[in-house]
Amino acid sequence: MRSFVLLSLLVGLAAAAAEFQLDQEGLEWLQVIGEGWAAPLDGFMNEEQYLTCLHYQHIVTSGGKMVPMAVPIVLPLDTATKSALEKESIVTLLSPKGEKIAKLSGLTFFEHRREERATRTFGIGADPQHPYIEKIMAGGEWLMGGKVEMLVDRIKFNDGMDQWRLTPAELRLKFTGMAADAVFVFQLRNPVHNGHALLMQDTGSKLKEQGFKKPVLWLSPLGGWTKDDDVPLDTRMAQHHAIIKNGVFGDIDVVLAIFPSPMLYAGPREVQWHASARVQGGATHYIVGRDPAGMKHPTKNALQPALGDDLYHQWHGQSMLKLNPILMKQLTLLPFHFASYDKVAGKMAFFDPKRKDDFVSISGTKMRKMAKDGEEPPPGFMDPEGWKVVSNFYKGVKVEL
Amino acid sequence: MRSFVLLSLLVGLAAAAAEFQLDQEGLEWLQVIGEGWAAPLDGFMNEEQYLTCLHYQHIVTSGGKMVPMAVPIVLPLDTATKSALEKESIVTLLSPKGEKIAKLSGLTFFEHRREERATRTFGIGADPQHPYIEKIMAGGEWLMGGKVEMLVDRIKFNDGMDQWRLTPAELRLKFTGMAADAVFVFQLRNPVHNGHALLMQDTGSKLKEQGFKKPVLWLSPLGGWTKDDDVPLDTRMAQHHAIIKNGVFGDIDVVLAIFPSPMLYAGPREVQWHASARVQGGATHYIVGRDPAGMKHPTKNALQPALGDDLYHQWHGQSMLKLNPILMKQLTLLPFHFASYDKVAGKMAFFDPKRKDDFVSISGTKMRKMAKDGEEPPPGFMDPEGWKVVSNFYKGVKVEL
Repeated sequence: MRSFVLLSLLVGLAAAAAEFQLDQEGLEWLQVIGEGWAAPLDGFMNEEQYLTCLHYQHIVTSGGKMVPMAVPIVLPLDTATKSALEKESIVTLLSPKGEKIAKLSGLTFFEHRREERATRTFGIGADPQHPYIEKIMAGGEWLMGGKVEMLVDRIKFNDGMDQWRLTPAELRLKFTGMAADAVFVFQLRNPVHNGHALLMQDTGSKLKEQGFKKPVLWLSPLGGWTKDDDVPLDTRMAQHHAIIKNGVFGDIDVVLAIFPSPMLYAGPREVQWHASARVQGGATHYIVGRDPAGMKHPTKNALQPALGDDLYHQWHGQSMLKLNPILMKQLTLLPFHFASYDKVAGKMAFFDPKRKDDFVSISGTKMRKMAKDGEEPPPGFMDPEGWKVVSNFYKGVKVEL
Repeated sequence: MRSFVLLSLLVGLAAAAAEFQLDQEGLEWLQVIGEGWAAPLDGFMNEEQYLTCLHYQHIVTSGGKMVPMAVPIVLPLDTATKSALEKESIVTLLSPKGEKIAKLSGLTFFEHRREERATRTFGIGADPQHPYIEKIMAGGEWLMGGKVEMLVDRIKFNDGMDQWRLTPAELRLKFTGMAADAVFVFQLRNPVHNGHALLMQDTGSKLKEQGFKKPVLWLSPLGGWTKDDDVPLDTRMAQHHAIIKNGVFGDIDVVLAIFPSPMLYAGPREVQWHASARVQGGATHYIVGRDPAGMKHPTKNALQPALGDDLYHQWHGQSMLKLNPILMKQLTLLPFHFASYDKVAGKMAFFDPKRKDDFVSISGTKMRKMAKDGEEPPPGFMDPEGWKVVSNFYKGVKVEL
């Protein structure tokens, strides 16, 4: 996926400039690092950072402080590329299109122990049926660490969505400009239905009841790589834009901005990454539901069928946020209330166990299936313009942004 | 392996007393907990402790402080036993011989997600060819947490080795009584050869050069479960006792005391457990060599043969000690110098790369093979009385303690 070009053409006394071309995932991680989402990490991980991340889900500052950093941010390369680059002190990173995009300095090279990375990160065997483990196992034998210095003002994708790409510093400025005294994040990688909107409205009201004057909802869709059967980013952004425009969040102020990270599907480990990165952008409150960043077990828990089909325990994601003593000094965790389709009321409503037969659950999978099959969801499930965006995607209609 | 007995015989108003019989490994962990090696952990882990241990290799105090605790200390049980016990508030723990040995209170029950535990702990797939993973995968579907209260003054094994079983508090008292101002630990699970002894003598001298008046060597053999091809504890203790008596450590004071933990073969994770547990007993300095708590990869790294046959990177154990900011405030790491058999000098000596052909390495595996085959090691490799103990074991001669 990656290749290198060694420019041996010497101009006067200028040294040869080694180059390394990033693939799309590498570019996404570069954006994550360059924009400061992973601060204080300021480059692709060296071995010490990688090891503490893998073992502790934190990195350690030079002062000996643990800082949350739950997922490895690394640059794999093959042996031939490593041999060519290891004499260099600086490498120029190229985008997949060949643009010089950043410098990497203070280079270090260390073993990419892929099985160990996969098993410690995901808590399952190194099974390439897990889509991110597939990527890990296909990576080179080595990892290259180094400090990132951006050569471009910002990474642009020219895909009609750059207006929603704000850096953590820009987001903080924006929230300050809005006089926000609480910023509550909703991380998502699915279209937003009216159950989500109800929860967000309710959360905003509760924050006001707690005394906050100006709670702001930061709708923060994940913008990097996702697995093939997820709804693509452009469809999701068009859907989010439509529903905000149509007022589904009521009188709560909303900021819509893309989180540039790739998705890992690493459950209780990844939810901590999702939260710590948003702290950089000014988040003060975080909402987490059941099984965040989860997926089905690739072999349906064949080793222990009694655990069911899910890869992770549905509440371990929330537990790991609650149990992280450093994150919990930075963020307040907000309760998640499950909203479902209330057949009697004809709208999404908080689930009421006393009349549970009145409710129908419409999961993300079920929603995608309905859209694929050209079925209409019950009225009140989703803002109609938002639904049209989703269903158009499955009809092959080009998204308008 | 474990069973429970519900004594339903009510004497007057006394409540029924539920009992749970520990297997040998459970008894060893109970000793670890009861004697304070895992402090502040004071019982078998509840789910919160288990999750932070698994994810962070630390537990979190009620004050929000991270404390090193690298290996799960848990009590597995099957579904039938769980169903019977979950109504109880206190369970009496029985030794494998049926003795009432401790009370477990504040009971909690949670899923024993065995694949997740194995992969996160060891960094490989849940392969039962790894001897501790075999134990995990054979365990029940549930884990039982609870606070331990010992019912016996101390756990005795009546195996001729109880005089070497000192609690952390007793060890601290002993070191204080010796006026030790440095306690350097050598964790081991193999017979001690003269190369080890040379390193210990040299370490003692260097500590004196650094200004310590009374450095004490704490020879700390692991006393719990080990895999079948390791040298058994009684043979090792007889060997250690013989070589100390014969003065192989020179003028360095030595305390020989058993560390009661089972072995996990978890490499860079386990070395942190080995170190943090010794801090409880008063260790101030720690020596770590290549590939601590390591073993061969069960499938010789079939997924990535370029990594060689070892399960762990040989220096990651040392790295994880160095990188642990909390442990490194409690312990000073001492350099490890590799000693090997010097054919010219006819003794064990620090390896000299300038005349590397003069040296022969005698690994633990090679040593065991020589003893098995009835071969004599070169003179000067090991104290002769110590060697006799080892070779007698392989001849089937009963160990005298």
